[in-house]
Amino acid sequence: MTTYRAPVADMKFLLRHVFRAEEMFATMPDTNEVNDELITAILAEAGKLIEGLVAPINQSGDQQGCKLENGVVTTPAGFKQAFAAWAVGGWSGLIGSVDFGGQGMPKVLSALIEEMNFGANSSFALYTILPTGVTLTLNQHGSEQLKQTYLPKLYAGTWSGTMCLTEPHAGTDLGMIHSRAVPSADGSYRVSGTKIFITAGEHDLTENIVHLVLAKLPDAQAGPRGISLFLVPKLLVDVAGNLTGETNNVTCGSIERKMGIKASATCVMNFEDSQGYLVGELNNGLSNMFTMMNHERLSMGLQGNGLAESSYQIAAEYAKERLQGRALTGPQQLDKAADSILVHPDVRRMLLTMRANIVAGRALSLYVAFQLDIGRFHEEADVRKQAEQLVALLIPVQKAYCTDRGFESCVLGQQVLGGHGYVAEWGLEQNVRDARIAQIYEGANGIQALDLMGRKTVRGNGELLKVLVAQMDEFIHEQQSVTAMQPYLEIFIDSKQRLVDTTAAIISNAVDAPDEIGAASYAYMELMGLTLYCFMWQRILAAALMAQEAGSGDREYLDGLIKTGEFFLYRMLPRSKSLVEEIAAGATVMMAMSAEQF
Amino acid sequence: MTTYRAPVADMKFLLRHVFRAEEMFATMPDTNEVNDELITAILAEAGKLIEGLVAPINQSGDQQGCKLENGVVTTPAGFKQAFAAWAVGGWSGLIGSVDFGGQGMPKVLSALIEEMNFGANSSFALYTILPTGVTLTLNQHGSEQLKQTYLPKLYAGTWSGTMCLTEPHAGTDLGMIHSRAVPSADGSYRVSGTKIFITAGEHDLTENIVHLVLAKLPDAQAGPRGISLFLVPKLLVDVAGNLTGETNNVTCGSIERKMGIKASATCVMNFEDSQGYLVGELNNGLSNMFTMMNHERLSMGLQGNGLAESSYQIAAEYAKERLQGRALTGPQQLDKAADSILVHPDVRRMLLTMRANIVAGRALSLYVAFQLDIGRFHEEADVRKQAEQLVALLIPVQKAYCTDRGFESCVLGQQVLGGHGYVAEWGLEQNVRDARIAQIYEGANGIQALDLMGRKTVRGNGELLKVLVAQMDEFIHEQQSVTAMQPYLEIFIDSKQRLVDTTAAIISNAVDAPDEIGAASYAYMELMGLTLYCFMWQRILAAALMAQEAGSGDREYLDGLIKTGEFFLYRMLPRSKSLVEEIAAGATVMMAMSAEQF
Repeated sequence: MTTYRAPVADMKFLLRHVFRAEEMFATMPDTNEVNDELITAILAEAGKLIEGLVAPINQSGDQQGCKLENGVVTTPAGFKQAFAAWAVGGWSGLIGSVDFGGQGMPKVLSALIEEMNFGANSSFALYTILPTGVTLTLNQHGSEQLKQTYLPKLYAGTWSGTMCLTEPHAGTDLGMIHSRAVPSADGSYRVSGTKIFITAGEHDLTENIVHLVLAKLPDAQAGPRGISLFLVPKLLVDVAGNLTGETNNVTCGSIERKMGIKASATCVMNFEDSQGYLVGELNNGLSNMFTMMNHERLSMGLQGNGLAESSYQIAAEYAKERLQGRALTGPQQLDKAADSILVHPDVRRMLLTMRANIVAGRALSLYVAFQLDIGRFHEEADVRKQAEQLVALLIPVQKAYCTDRGFESCVLGQQVLGGHGYVAEWGLEQNVRDARIAQIYEGANGIQALDLMGRKTVRGNGELLKVLVAQMDEFIHEQQSVTAMQPYLEIFIDSKQRLVDTTAAIISNAVDAPDEIGAASYAYMELMGLTLYCFMWQRILAAALMAQEAGSGDREYLDGLIKTGEFFLYRMLPRSKSLVEEIAAGATVMMAMSAEQF
Repeated sequence: MTTYRAPVADMKFLLRHVFRAEEMFATMPDTNEVNDELITAILAEAGKLIEGLVAPINQSGDQQGCKLENGVVTTPAGFKQAFAAWAVGGWSGLIGSVDFGGQGMPKVLSALIEEMNFGANSSFALYTILPTGVTLTLNQHGSEQLKQTYLPKLYAGTWSGTMCLTEPHAGTDLGMIHSRAVPSADGSYRVSGTKIFITAGEHDLTENIVHLVLAKLPDAQAGPRGISLFLVPKLLVDVAGNLTGETNNVTCGSIERKMGIKASATCVMNFEDSQGYLVGELNNGLSNMFTMMNHERLSMGLQGNGLAESSYQIAAEYAKERLQGRALTGPQQLDKAADSILVHPDVRRMLLTMRANIVAGRALSLYVAFQLDIGRFHEEADVRKQAEQLVALLIPVQKAYCTDRGFESCVLGQQVLGGHGYVAEWGLEQNVRDARIAQIYEGANGIQALDLMGRKTVRGNGELLKVLVAQMDEFIHEQQSVTAMQPYLEIFIDSKQRLVDTTAAIISNAVDAPDEIGAASYAYMELMGLTLYCFMWQRILAAALMAQEAGSGDREYLDGLIKTGEFFLYRMLPRSKSLVEEIAAGATVMMAMSAEQF
């Protein structure tokens, strides 16, 4: 059986040749030491830890699951040791603020490491990304006191953290939450309520767990504008950041039995007059929580890519080794009883679809991560602003499209193995189950599509798309003199125009008919996803052709990349045309049905 | 939580109004008593049993799974009782030959009951369909003695049966099997070998299990032409059909741990000098086994449809009841804290996609089942021949396309519920896991697509497609005077032409380049599937319009059907155009990669 290998070479190609990371980081004072050598060293080191400690407990973690007994959640064998190694290695604070013990590294690096972690063991990865989300929120919105007390322990991996949003009756619509926070005389709050679907709400990996909880003050206004954000520790902490020895009435009521990510404890969390501390301003909780959402949503896309990569590795290896039948063009391996199934075009279709999506999805994720880094580190405000605009536009697409394609790739990988893909042994069925959640949590993909179409596109009259199109046009202009790129560019220019025209049509239709937004949203997200994957493949093709001409890099590798890119352009991109036609059908055909007719 | 309801009304509409089952059955002597009344009574009776005994043990069956201890497989609680009720009800012999105690009913009826069974409990359904496959094979190819000894017990459900094909190194390529059969002096054979992935290979539901085993004689030629078919009982049987009390060295080595259908025992079966009886002629085993393949493959498509229906029922109910957010056009349920999520176009997109596929998939399955019945019961040889040609063409599409759409529908249903779809409670995640196998077993869908494209289309120069197109043309001709049908027919005529043109192009390309067959196969299967679903929707729309005009039937129901059909035509069918473009890209882009580049 194939075990997960960190795809460091693929990642390095994108960073060096496609995104020229070193040059980019050199332009910003806080990242100018992040050169190719450092990047390579960090990725290799993370890859070693993940291959050695995280991947080996993936399948056993799925089998054992988490156990809840007397309020105590026990993670599967090996998780404690792996998390300890993770913490000791300093990985919890990789992108953390240097003022509080973090390492101040760019998101680009942590994004790639997250992809590896998710690919090797998605349940384990969740224990590592939730605390990062908490630190991002605290760092941006918390008081100096809260930061000093909590950030160092979170960066050190001694403590972990969660996001407590959902309640049984309130998921997408958080305005309806019931959780209450009552002010105390000392300026803290007493938080009470029940939260569900809390990833890593309770576990045995860290000595304390820091919950970020959405709740309402007794006199808060109804709806989302009455929501505030509170930090509620599992165990009480003094101002110096030491445990007082007291508990805080934060208990785990049950853990969910679910399709996958079984080694990740998904908890029902009960807060009963638990001491909490306001994070940011009163009634601004939803907005404060959303600052970390872009990072978390990026992570979900990375989960899709990571698991797709894992499935690809296993399926490609299997396809090369499995002997069954003969090529349609006649026997290829005459010394064997049959040819490897890789001789069959349809097996190649599955593998190439996976690989084309993985490479483009990784590139898109890096593209977004770079924008997050520019938004954080760049000195010029207008550059930062443009990066933030791109993040706002791209995140819902990256989240939804990469998780959809990730799931699809896991399903394809399973299909390559036939019956062997359906049994547990090879790990492919677990990947399918684990990848499925990424399309659902952190805002289901339909919500991402609606965010993209409504808030990010129609509401701003397509302004954000113009920022993206400007970058596409710049690339097209740069490549105009490269002969080998011309057939590819022609396809890209068409594809971009299709997106632009469709956007204009939807904006115009939606003026009088708001349902047109929701009717177009999902297909529009897919159209945008395909167009972005096309943009990424254009950049990769350009970089590969340039490297080929320069005689640098592995010729076979570059040639394989180019062929995969062509497969994307000729076999996968055509789907975008039928999406346009589906969108053009409009809302009427959907809204005509009465509720009873469903 | 919604429990499975047999969709008898939907089924009756298709039988009466779309396919005019009573009229059709009246034309054939052996089925002329199968009138609407009888059909309705049988469907209602089966539905009652399935709702009452089969559906309630679906979730518990998944949780408990099968257990293997000391060679004995124990099925989950309730399975024994449900199977006993099934047998006592006479359902095991529903379509069986009347000469041996079967009821001689048409496949059309058993197909609908299979759909219900698979929808209610796919694991249970498998225990019922495998014996049917054995009886079909025995009835067609077994000696009179074998039929007399085995058929009555199989029809009575006292015994069950299996198909033993796959070996660890030989799945798709059965020519490579190692199992051996050595002739004995008494005319029987000693069968030895190991078979894997044997559904219901061992269990506690029946007093005996009859295995149909593919094996080779010691002097058989290599490859598929050396394969013979043997009947090997678990317990030895005398000529009168009574157990002798002796075992037959047929043992279950292990059961698979797998993604879903966990209450179905998937066994490794070991045969060691087990007594076996030749079925059909020596060295003709593969062909004999394949006579039941059309029935089994139809069953897999029915599994896809059944689970999709189950998921649809749960998701539609949830969408009506779940209050979250407000409609984009303004609040709809002012008396409630939020609107039901059914106000959102994207939720409707998911539900309508499911429903459009379910109705068309059921119609397509019925269309094929009717051809099987015509092939079995019709008195005129040329009518039988035409039906058999249609079966040959349609089965791979029905198997692959209905299982793909079934899986997709289960995934969509899960998505409608968000996080609640990912946890076990609502049953949607189980449906996804259970539906996944249907795309893999009985010939993975890629193999179905290759069968359709190669054997059924290119090899016969498109002759089979002409039979189908003639039926389409006949329908178009009939409808030419129906004004309300004209906009739909226009779309259908385009769609049909796209299929015809694409077929011709592929056949022409494949002359010099056999890889073009494999390169086109999957997209071609999808194109054919979409075109057939379009054909089915045309027939349903025509029938619904006619019923509407006649004032017969439930107006709301008919109106809902018409709107769902329009959704299919305007929002789902456009995909066929991009499939044509993908096919046109050809094989080169797939075959250019070297094995090392994967």
